[in-house]
Amino acid sequence: MKHVLVTGAHGFIGRHLSSHLAKSGFLVSGLGHGIWPESEASRWGVSQWINGDIGPSNLGLLTRQAGTPDIVFHLAGGSSVGAAVQNPREDFHRTVVSTAELLDWMRQHLPLAKLIVASSAAVYGAGHSGRISESAALQPYSPYGRHKHMMEELATGYASDYGLKIAIARLFSVYGPGLRKQLLWDLCAKMESQQGGITLGGTGNELRDWTHVSDVVRGLATLGSVAANSAPVVNIGTGTGTSVHQIAAQMTSEWFRDAPAPSVQFSGHARPGDPFSLIAENASLTKLGFQWEHRLTDGLADYVRWYRQNGRET
Amino acid sequence: MKHVLVTGAHGFIGRHLSSHLAKSGFLVSGLGHGIWPESEASRWGVSQWINGDIGPSNLGLLTRQAGTPDIVFHLAGGSSVGAAVQNPREDFHRTVVSTAELLDWMRQHLPLAKLIVASSAAVYGAGHSGRISESAALQPYSPYGRHKHMMEELATGYASDYGLKIAIARLFSVYGPGLRKQLLWDLCAKMESQQGGITLGGTGNELRDWTHVSDVVRGLATLGSVAANSAPVVNIGTGTGTSVHQIAAQMTSEWFRDAPAPSVQFSGHARPGDPFSLIAENASLTKLGFQWEHRLTDGLADYVRWYRQNGRET
Repeated sequence: MKHVLVTGAHGFIGRHLSSHLAKSGFLVSGLGHGIWPESEASRWGVSQWINGDIGPSNLGLLTRQAGTPDIVFHLAGGSSVGAAVQNPREDFHRTVVSTAELLDWMRQHLPLAKLIVASSAAVYGAGHSGRISESAALQPYSPYGRHKHMMEELATGYASDYGLKIAIARLFSVYGPGLRKQLLWDLCAKMESQQGGITLGGTGNELRDWTHVSDVVRGLATLGSVAANSAPVVNIGTGTGTSVHQIAAQMTSEWFRDAPAPSVQFSGHARPGDPFSLIAENASLTKLGFQWEHRLTDGLADYVRWYRQNGRET
Repeated sequence: MKHVLVTGAHGFIGRHLSSHLAKSGFLVSGLGHGIWPESEASRWGVSQWINGDIGPSNLGLLTRQAGTPDIVFHLAGGSSVGAAVQNPREDFHRTVVSTAELLDWMRQHLPLAKLIVASSAAVYGAGHSGRISESAALQPYSPYGRHKHMMEELATGYASDYGLKIAIARLFSVYGPGLRKQLLWDLCAKMESQQGGITLGGTGNELRDWTHVSDVVRGLATLGSVAANSAPVVNIGTGTGTSVHQIAAQMTSEWFRDAPAPSVQFSGHARPGDPFSLIAENASLTKLGFQWEHRLTDGLADYVRWYRQNGRET
């Protein structure tokens, strides 16, 4: 049985990835922050969970207890542009220092394992329109995006300087059941407690490439299954942009099925660190044989159902 | 009396910079690693020295004891390509983490001070020939150069995201009395213990822009005295490249004045992380009114004299 380590397994994407990998027959270990009772972790397919910093001590503990991983999926790191702007030092430690520790530990103790690094479309930054290819200019313009870029730079350096087998996955706007923040969550919370109209930040015209978490984790697993140097940097995106206006319209009509949906207003002010358009050119991913399965309209309807049933749980 | 903080003041360039600033009328505080008796530190113009990591605790201690700095010169960081290749984690912490800590502390406690970050020509990496301008492609290809690049990226980010007043100085091959490593030191040590011929790594054709430390610290002080946004990134180099062959020929003829100089052989193998040519385009520095004073031939002769008198002291 192949053994995979998922850093940040307790997070939104980490849980879905762990679950998918366990169902695919992997032994899954996890390391990162979060109190996670064993019964809960194993429900998500995680056989062993260590709650703590990514560093030599916890990595050594994990491999002594669970054995040496064949593949490492590095999902730990900052996960909020706004939080990074508020506290850049914290985001730096979560994203950059954790990656530096993981890479150097792998250089010394796990040089033959494959490493999949989950990065973000935020490394592209502003100033792009249309589909963005992996070779496009990297102009991150928030601490969040800068730190993801530094993470990539570290990983690329360890690949070329020390021969580590590394692939970088640039994730776009990942959504799905379990995501308790960002646009869809905020919309549901506002629709639930609706008093008067609904107002969102930004202009509403911002374009994002919405990707369902179930597809994204299959994409990550695909990268884990091919030779690392065959696809060193891969966009995990659908290639289609959808505006916040369109998302809001569908979410409200989904929520208020039997009643007239309220109008959604926009503040008109861009949020700090928020690029206008982030849409993936996904030829590299398609070349690996990957196919998208979840349609956005279905995914949004599912999300509303999930929120109504589970949103308020912790 | 203006107050400056020099991180890494105990290092080769740090000592010379502290001494120069103290003579120019500044109160100089220092923070970084190194056991430095007060009498020794004050001989270099440093009124207060804290031996320790750059972080909120020591930075807070320093300002409580010595007051708030008007200018910070950030010289702390990795200082050896070879050491960085051997232990990239250590170099990452010295260069990148220390900078992240300093920047975030300044964001919170010292937002109006000016920060001069000492970076390196290693950020340009290989593949350049002739004079390299500040806008040239950055292709660092050693962990040392990558980490200096990440340091710059952090600094540039804090300047644009939080309005910190930052200038980046890219240093070339700094030499002078007190430098106890690298080519000149190795050559002197080999000439002193000479048994048979002298052999050096590399091909001998590598080109470097040799800059005397007394000039370099004046260059750094110049950056400290002008508005940070008038010169955000400045090469501190002479614009002239000199090969290792030429350096070795002059050093040996200087050392063996009254006897035939031995021949210097080269291994022919490039050292890891060692670009072929690093020569500065220095129009930005010249525009600030800076003039170079030390000629290389004089500087090398001085170095040999210094080594004979002091080289073996600790």
